[in-house]
Amino acid sequence: MKFCSNCAGPVSLTVPPGDHLPRYVCASCGTIHYENPRIIAGCVIEHQGKILLCKRAIEPRYGFWTTPAGFMENGESVQQAAAREAMEEALAHVRLGSMLSIVNVLRAHQVHITFRATLADPSFGIGPESLESRLYAEEEIPWPDIAFLSVEFALRRYLEDRRLGRELLHFRDIDWRDGKPVMTDGPSQ
Amino acid sequence: MKFCSNCAGPVSLTVPPGDHLPRYVCASCGTIHYENPRIIAGCVIEHQGKILLCKRAIEPRYGFWTTPAGFMENGESVQQAAAREAMEEALAHVRLGSMLSIVNVLRAHQVHITFRATLADPSFGIGPESLESRLYAEEEIPWPDIAFLSVEFALRRYLEDRRLGRELLHFRDIDWRDGKPVMTDGPSQ
Ligand SMILES: [Zn+2]
Ligand SMILES: [Zn+2]
Repeated sequence: MKFCSNCAGPVSLTVPPGDHLPRYVCASCGTIHYENPRIIAGCVIEHQGKILLCKRAIEPRYGFWTTPAGFMENGESVQQAAAREAMEEALAHVRLGSMLSIVNVLRAHQVHITFRATLADPSFGIGPESLESRLYAEEEIPWPDIAFLSVEFALRRYLEDRRLGRELLHFRDIDWRDGKPVMTDGPSQ
Repeated sequence: MKFCSNCAGPVSLTVPPGDHLPRYVCASCGTIHYENPRIIAGCVIEHQGKILLCKRAIEPRYGFWTTPAGFMENGESVQQAAAREAMEEALAHVRLGSMLSIVNVLRAHQVHITFRATLADPSFGIGPESLESRLYAEEEIPWPDIAFLSVEFALRRYLEDRRLGRELLHFRDIDWRDGKPVMTDGPSQ
């Protein structure tokens, strides 16, 4: 951020009075421009015992496989965002179930919220952000080609819970130190 | 948003190619400025059977009572944000427990995430954004003076669960139509 979106004056990083963190503050009009984490909403979709994955047609992680997920938009709920992403990426009309996982991706300033889901009707397809969509049996899942650590976490917890006949909510923090991911799990509930 | 934070050129609301929603787009440098919902993190703090509430010293809802809560910051987890708000608003060092509620506040473009918590040590006080902090027994809670609908929801579910000896996660959407709140609950889990 270099300029004020309100008056086009230059902004500078300073700690406003009474605050405790540096913010982009406009010297001309005084507007404080806050930046906050964003929510990525998605779902693990099961159909006839298999899991629906999409091969990414966009960066980052072009060509890798993911569960449908994307940025939550203003005016929608987290649940609506998760269902919308299933429609956009896999042309899938889903019925959302319980909340599966919440992952704080600290360096990316993102919170990834994933729900359980099933196909509301058996048809699905390939959205503009996908190269391919496919139902995978548990033993077929291409683990080395899963796009994101948070997606792998959600998928593994989903399958584990399914095996144990339960539906828990799982928590993880993902940070990066010396170029390596550092993962810390909270108690599942 | 009137100007581009990257180049100070004027922005206009248009639907970018391949997108489905209007965004603030800069005609000069082409930057698309996305706006997304923000997370409000907080906690219901119990100590010796009573609930810690703070009387707000800031707008909105100056003088009304609330559980500690506020905007999640970049670089922290939702859990860290909830604990930090308890420290800032009530000078309370808390031990976070399970997740209590997730409320989509649609018109405000906010998601309110509330945890259960207890005081890690019995001291608490009055932060700069509070006029007063107090422990309330269940029957003393000043319901008509609770600041926000999402806080009332979290408090009522907390107390109900406590009575029933359980700790569920509760979901609500709050929208506004014709000046009145319209509330829709999802299944608790
Ligand atoms: Zn300005
Ligand atoms: Zn620009």
